Amino acid sequence: MKTELSRTLGIEHAIFGFTPFPAVAAALTRAGGFGVLGAVRYTAPEDLARDLDWMQEHTGGLPYGLDVVMPAKKVEAPENQTLTEAEVEAMIPEGHRAFVRATLAKHGVPELAEGEASGWRITGWMEQVARNQLDVAFDYPIKLLANALGSPPPDVVARAHDHGVLVAALAGSARHARHHAEAGIDIVVAQGYEAGGHTGEIASMVLTPEVVDAVAPLPVLAAGGIGSGEQIAAGLALGAQGVWLGSIWLTATEADLHSRALTAKLLAAGSGDTVRSRALTGKPARQLRTEWTDAWDDPAGPGTLPMPLQGLLVAEAVSRIQKYEIDPLLGTPVGQIVGRMNAERSVQQVVDELTRGFEKAVDRINRIAGRSDA
Amino acid sequence: MKTELSRTLGIEHAIFGFTPFPAVAAALTRAGGFGVLGAVRYTAPEDLARDLDWMQEHTGGLPYGLDVVMPAKKVEAPENQTLTEAEVEAMIPEGHRAFVRATLAKHGVPELAEGEASGWRITGWMEQVARNQLDVAFDYPIKLLANALGSPPPDVVARAHDHGVLVAALAGSARHARHHAEAGIDIVVAQGYEAGGHTGEIASMVLTPEVVDAVAPLPVLAAGGIGSGEQIAAGLALGAQGVWLGSIWLTATEADLHSRALTAKLLAAGSGDTVRSRALTGKPARQLRTEWTDAWDDPAGPGTLPMPLQGLLVAEAVSRIQKYEIDPLLGTPVGQIVGRMNAERSVQQVVDELTRGFEKAVDRINRIAGRSDA
Repeated sequence: MKTELSRTLGIEHAIFGFTPFPAVAAALTRAGGFGVLGAVRYTAPEDLARDLDWMQEHTGGLPYGLDVVMPAKKVEAPENQTLTEAEVEAMIPEGHRAFVRATLAKHGVPELAEGEASGWRITGWMEQVARNQLDVAFDYPIKLLANALGSPPPDVVARAHDHGVLVAALAGSARHARHHAEAGIDIVVAQGYEAGGHTGEIASMVLTPEVVDAVAPLPVLAAGGIGSGEQIAAGLALGAQGVWLGSIWLTATEADLHSRALTAKLLAAGSGDTVRSRALTGKPARQLRTEWTDAWDDPAGPGTLPMPLQGLLVAEAVSRIQKYEIDPLLGTPVGQIVGRMNAERSVQQVVDELTRGFEKAVDRINRIAGRSDA
Repeated sequence: MKTELSRTLGIEHAIFGFTPFPAVAAALTRAGGFGVLGAVRYTAPEDLARDLDWMQEHTGGLPYGLDVVMPAKKVEAPENQTLTEAEVEAMIPEGHRAFVRATLAKHGVPELAEGEASGWRITGWMEQVARNQLDVAFDYPIKLLANALGSPPPDVVARAHDHGVLVAALAGSARHARHHAEAGIDIVVAQGYEAGGHTGEIASMVLTPEVVDAVAPLPVLAAGGIGSGEQIAAGLALGAQGVWLGSIWLTATEADLHSRALTAKLLAAGSGDTVRSRALTGKPARQLRTEWTDAWDDPAGPGTLPMPLQGLLVAEAVSRIQKYEIDPLLGTPVGQIVGRMNAERSVQQVVDELTRGFEKAVDRINRIAGRSDA
């Protein structure tokens, strides 16, 4: 499975994998794909450095990348002024905090122990945190820097290019994609409606070719709804130079969700058990539908706050829900392909299935096309 | 482009086209595809007979089909009793009628002339009307009977099979598809989220293979998001035995939308200009987003009524909006591929582009797969 882009990066399969777990990213790179480590959960630069050290040791010189989150739209702040985390926290209305407490109380969610850190606290949405992550990342031989929300700032793009690092950005529409192209981005990830995490409303079947046309000759990766070799063949038939998979790795044996109950929920969920909700970050992100997402999506509730306020508001609550495995509330970002994630397998097994399924799909399409030589 | 199903039906290309226009259905059949005439707008059986006569004269013995709408869930009625149209009409609350009047008045929509029939009145949702349509249809050599909402009743399936007519049913989930298989349906149309008209929330990339697996060895047609040869290749790579296209024909030169303004809106619309709304029929159906759909989807409004009440409620209003081409309110069911419908072309030209694009996509996928003999 080779495209111009996969040849440029020197990888065997044009399969890119986004994952918050270094063990998964490294395993995918070793399996001939391209692992991309999600950085958003690293608040402390030294934690990221530790995990990138580990990645270096476990990828044998094969290429991998890093994914940061720099929202294109920021919290309103006076010009040239960066708000501190405390100042941002102060913008959260008390009514919303009360709603969090009430929802947790309704389900009897215990408090964290005194002094116990909120493991799920995500501050990587904050530009300064992302910039600190980049200061670390550019010390490592990463080959790709991806940004999940909007085009990275011009100085970040320039810095990446100075380091010989390709820059990718996710796009949910052709308009986003054109904006990325104008910002000097090298690769556009077309993130369809069915994808896990932040996503728009245009499905991959329509979005992928639209983005390919919008940014040609820039390479496009198809993301959203891809978890099998047939789906890879479909994404590539739509003009992509590779595929970008996130959800499928959540049930890899190398993944560490810190919750067997959550893994069990993922293995049991069907394709209809996700929802696009602002509950987690303030922007629409596909995730398991739970009573937690229902509470935030309920018109009778207070509704969600804009990013990054919503993420800060719910961080401790999500940590408690995960720690105590409160089943009706327990969720995670995941795409509609969760319906196909029915067994835990190693990353290598997943890649083997993907490549075998791809070859079968190519056989099938050749039979339909009447290519006698196929 | 040949599959087991296309060979069974004796067609050159596994391209099925749903359309309310006999001229489009006949042209697709003549172009080597399979035209399926939508019957829902035929209230009078003699009108359907007239158009099927015309189809017979213009398809030269090549196969075509008919699409009816028999909702699986009906309006509540005492057992063994069929409600008359007037009895159903009487179930519409006056508040909803007032909302229709107010919305039309806000946009200055003129009344129809006295005695002028509401052209858009759709009664085909009513089971008795659909049954009358079938009484006509089985006098013609149709090869396929499709049902848009749920499995047709057992007696209808049996009657079709007695006439040697294959039965197809649309499904928005694997569960629906399994239900169809149990009901003896011959072909399942997997209708993805991105499709025009009634549709569920699972996107084609995920839905198609899920339905293929759910009903194997029954043949599946991929529907939703398909308007190019690349998208056909994708649908077939996902395991479908053919594709089912509806939106693309709306801007065919043979189509007769009765409104140049509506054609112009379709040609100008982008993939993000549709919405899944209950405004037209009471069930979620993708259509152009307009101030009309916004009014019905507004939480501050009265909301929509269940099928078939909503369709009856808005029929005259939609006729007036279309007749007087009230631009902010003017819409039609259409899928996200409306973004690619940018020029009027004949059905033959569309089919030529689809087959050429398909061959190109197969070439591309073979290059990526390193099939040196391709």
